[in-house]
Amino acid sequence: MNDRATDGERPLSELNWGRWGEGDERGAANLLTPEVVKEAVGLVRDGRVFSLALPIGEADAPVLPGRPACQHYMRIDGGDYAAGLSRRTGFQSVDDVVMLPTHGTTHMDALAHIADEHRLFNGFPLSGVRSNGAARLGIDKTPPLVGPGVMLDVCALRGVESLGPGDVITPADIEACEQRQGVRVRPGSIVLFRTGWLSRFASEGVSAFKSEAGIGMAAAQWLAERDVAAVGADNFAVEVIPTESGKAAPVHRALIRGCGIYLMELFNLEELREAGVGEFLFVAAPLRIVGGVGSPLNPIAIT
Amino acid sequence: MNDRATDGERPLSELNWGRWGEGDERGAANLLTPEVVKEAVGLVRDGRVFSLALPIGEADAPVLPGRPACQHYMRIDGGDYAAGLSRRTGFQSVDDVVMLPTHGTTHMDALAHIADEHRLFNGFPLSGVRSNGAARLGIDKTPPLVGPGVMLDVCALRGVESLGPGDVITPADIEACEQRQGVRVRPGSIVLFRTGWLSRFASEGVSAFKSEAGIGMAAAQWLAERDVAAVGADNFAVEVIPTESGKAAPVHRALIRGCGIYLMELFNLEELREAGVGEFLFVAAPLRIVGGVGSPLNPIAIT
Amino acid sequence: MNDRATDGERPLSELNWGRWGEGDERGAANLLTPEVVKEAVGLVRDGRVFSLALPIGEADAPVLPGRPACQHYMRIDGGDYAAGLSRRTGFQSVDDVVMLPTHGTTHMDALAHIADEHRLFNGFPLSGVRSNGAARLGIDKTPPLVGPGVMLDVCALRGVESLGPGDVITPADIEACEQRQGVRVRPGSIVLFRTGWLSRFASEGVSAFKSEAGIGMAAAQWLAERDVAAVGADNFAVEVIPTESGKAAPVHRALIRGCGIYLMELFNLEELREAGVGEFLFVAAPLRIVGGVGSPLNPIAIT
Amino acid sequence: MNDRATDGERPLSELNWGRWGEGDERGAANLLTPEVVKEAVGLVRDGRVFSLALPIGEADAPVLPGRPACQHYMRIDGGDYAAGLSRRTGFQSVDDVVMLPTHGTTHMDALAHIADEHRLFNGFPLSGVRSNGAARLGIDKTPPLVGPGVMLDVCALRGVESLGPGDVITPADIEACEQRQGVRVRPGSIVLFRTGWLSRFASEGVSAFKSEAGIGMAAAQWLAERDVAAVGADNFAVEVIPTESGKAAPVHRALIRGCGIYLMELFNLEELREAGVGEFLFVAAPLRIVGGVGSPLNPIAIT
Repeated sequence: MNDRATDGERPLSELNWGRWGEGDERGAANLLTPEVVKEAVGLVRDGRVFSLALPIGEADAPVLPGRPACQHYMRIDGGDYAAGLSRRTGFQSVDDVVMLPTHGTTHMDALAHIADEHRLFNGFPLSGVRSNGAARLGIDKTPPLVGPGVMLDVCALRGVESLGPGDVITPADIEACEQRQGVRVRPGSIVLFRTGWLSRFASEGVSAFKSEAGIGMAAAQWLAERDVAAVGADNFAVEVIPTESGKAAPVHRALIRGCGIYLMELFNLEELREAGVGEFLFVAAPLRIVGGVGSPLNPIAIT
Repeated sequence: MNDRATDGERPLSELNWGRWGEGDERGAANLLTPEVVKEAVGLVRDGRVFSLALPIGEADAPVLPGRPACQHYMRIDGGDYAAGLSRRTGFQSVDDVVMLPTHGTTHMDALAHIADEHRLFNGFPLSGVRSNGAARLGIDKTPPLVGPGVMLDVCALRGVESLGPGDVITPADIEACEQRQGVRVRPGSIVLFRTGWLSRFASEGVSAFKSEAGIGMAAAQWLAERDVAAVGADNFAVEVIPTESGKAAPVHRALIRGCGIYLMELFNLEELREAGVGEFLFVAAPLRIVGGVGSPLNPIAIT
Repeated sequence: MNDRATDGERPLSELNWGRWGEGDERGAANLLTPEVVKEAVGLVRDGRVFSLALPIGEADAPVLPGRPACQHYMRIDGGDYAAGLSRRTGFQSVDDVVMLPTHGTTHMDALAHIADEHRLFNGFPLSGVRSNGAARLGIDKTPPLVGPGVMLDVCALRGVESLGPGDVITPADIEACEQRQGVRVRPGSIVLFRTGWLSRFASEGVSAFKSEAGIGMAAAQWLAERDVAAVGADNFAVEVIPTESGKAAPVHRALIRGCGIYLMELFNLEELREAGVGEFLFVAAPLRIVGGVGSPLNPIAIT
Repeated sequence: MNDRATDGERPLSELNWGRWGEGDERGAANLLTPEVVKEAVGLVRDGRVFSLALPIGEADAPVLPGRPACQHYMRIDGGDYAAGLSRRTGFQSVDDVVMLPTHGTTHMDALAHIADEHRLFNGFPLSGVRSNGAARLGIDKTPPLVGPGVMLDVCALRGVESLGPGDVITPADIEACEQRQGVRVRPGSIVLFRTGWLSRFASEGVSAFKSEAGIGMAAAQWLAERDVAAVGADNFAVEVIPTESGKAAPVHRALIRGCGIYLMELFNLEELREAGVGEFLFVAAPLRIVGGVGSPLNPIAIT
């Protein structure tokens, strides 16, 4: 449990500031202590490995309108050799480049991603995020997240294929999922919510970015009090849209900026669901982009 | 042990073709069975997590001349807000994109990366690798590599800070490292070689790309017979350059194309070395770039 | 007039092959001789200069679905200075990069853009266009087009704001425009057609890429016989879509590949129209992208 | 002549502010009136056209260290067809993208490129140049430059192949060139200086970016008083480096920011020199990149 007081007027807005030191840039990743890691490793039973990432391709990826598409270009390819390119050395190699919006596919938000009143998590000034990247709280400061993973299947709880736009996930939902699935959110947990949004994107395309089911502020508070390390979902913003208050991105502000808790989006949880997996060793290692404010990700669950 | 015969004229060139089925696109990742994963999980003792990735930044990265630099651009940043941008919503978010040569920082080669006589691993035609990516053996076909990691510190074995250009790592070196470090390369192992090359790059810059210490063909054969899943190193090509025979990239041809064994390059093994770690749970999940022939990577060791 | 025979079964398909030499890579730009340039310069009366380019921006540009958007990123900007960046030198500079699909805004097709039966203009093999660009007929081989420009306002001729999807522009239209506007298409002319398509894009967005008004095969033949150097339009393909025969891109094949005549698309002809200008000195200098198969363009008319 | 007083302590720093109106974003391009254009057109004698642009390719371009290389990627190419791609339609087309640092090849600086005391030309605030580009004075606000061009061959004047690093071009040099070449710098002129720097780059590579011959402050003042529209050169900064005062970029500050005069760099003037051309109709139309602070360019001279 997070023993810090969370009541009062702005309960989460600066909750974990200073908790891990004035200069801390890792936030809730600090909860992933060797003890927590060892405990999480103990969750492995079968030795099965699941990738929770969407494929990255020009046409497939659910990229928020306004962001550029993921792009993939070959610098040299088999076509070149078929067209007559030859190397004296008698063998052939191929090479490529990718251009990725860091939030345009399965990804992790850096702690530098969100500010309020021009302050980032732990009080670092937003003005340190410049054209050459985030001087503080960049994704390169985030260690690989290795810890106890739990997937809460809110769709299964409610008996639907997909939650509806604007549906709020509440603390009662979380606790009902825990009970139904026989799992437990604990300090250091990486909690993944299954909302069914990806199936809506598959059928609706970019118009599915207008609203989504997600966690509300009460759930955010519950998660912060339970002292989780990270929260992910199969939607594009973790939090419900439109928001309950009408204010923009309150969960982002509370969790990322107030608590240093990592948000992760556009996860594919379908294989986990099919396998009936609830708890697992979670591993997600963001690319060490210096000053990056997010990273594409291939998160995995080991069961 | 890999019970397939490896003697004869071209011992490794098609060794594992057909071994996991005609249509197989995972190669030696097939060795990472649930049993192997569980065994590897059993290597965790302390719960410490090490990132083996280099930072990705325009100036830092050792990018082979000819490849473009890693590029990072902000789509919106703190400077914009400092300059007067405001949102009615009262909060601020920032966003970015990255452009990466897939082999220009810590990375994994896809099995589609290397061909010989216009065939890729398992006999797939090179002509399937086109401007829209690799139809077969792309990095999106590679599952996350989760298995038993072993780091062989050849520098420590020889008592040097860095091996010299052209120094060949031999089976005798591997076995001496095993004995000296009390570790063992086993079926499904992910084997990482420490050559000290990164320190040469730090001092010599791009001229350090002309040659390097690395494994020779005998070591490649030894590793294939031991049936490893992947081989990584702190240099740019795993294999020694210039090669022993003068022919180009024989280890790449033998291991990637002949055996379906993954090669991974530009690893930072310094923290592992400082911690005196030899065996660990290795996890590396490449980005799921559709048709990609490589992926930037943040590989981790859990000890 | 082009005195080469154009009748027979495949009248235009190889019409100008060999006309300017076996190794020629300039095609109909050869028609822009010093004499033609001088004549074109003589068209200047008022000294007014018109840009015929669309603005290049992420949201504005009519980019064919499937092509990436035009992207513009700042490497250093005023926000950075507002956020506190300072230089001892007491001044400030800013810098940026652009990423452009070469056919994604106002542009010129290179002669290497179109092949048929695996041959480009003048018989060069398509196989010479590889990942490192076009070995032959790349846009770097195209000289700046400077010559007599004529804008044919087919909308005005028909008394409509915009032609409709599938409307075919015929030789009779061209001749009626010549007469109505008092202009003349001549050898070496750069002919620009006003179809009103941009106004359709403004109202319909990407769905306006499904079809368009444009020139048909008879007009293409007429233009080739008149021996023009280039043909541009305010639509995305110059030619009518769907095509008359149902076969793909017959005008592209005939004019680019058969005749070496340049096609240019997504021109903004509205200011010319408002000014009532029909003939002018036309200047368009493509970027000298080595091996490029097209170039973004800021074409101009001087009247 | 520019009749505005240029004496006093900061003679050029705000010379042309307000001259063409408070909201003006075109600067000295305003000098290119229809009358000036007509006069410039009158310079055409032979009808020959010269491109003054360097080729744009990964290896060729003289890109200032720190800027990314020009990059060119094929989206579909002849290799793909050679490898078996086919279209039912029976023809083939190819497509590509380019990524360009706007100042990394032959280019024009936008008026937004340079600030001093956080003000751009005409007093516009630097803070308007943000991640989405320059709100004011972006290259999209610059009309095509069409006017009287003059090339001053300082190498020929001094009888050298190339001026040396740090060599200052003075008003006396300009006037000697005028006399020797029989040309005249006039109001609205686009003046191009030949320093021979490109030959130094060819032999020295990126180390040639440490210093260069170029115009000094007296020449800048002379040019401003002569009321030119733009100044270009075959070097990377137009002005001499190291600067005479040791302060950074005084000519950029004076001409771009104080006078609204355009600077253009990395011109190839060798063909003009070989042809013995001194005066010509100059045409350079920057790409209309919305908010761009520079543009790659294919400038031309028509003689």
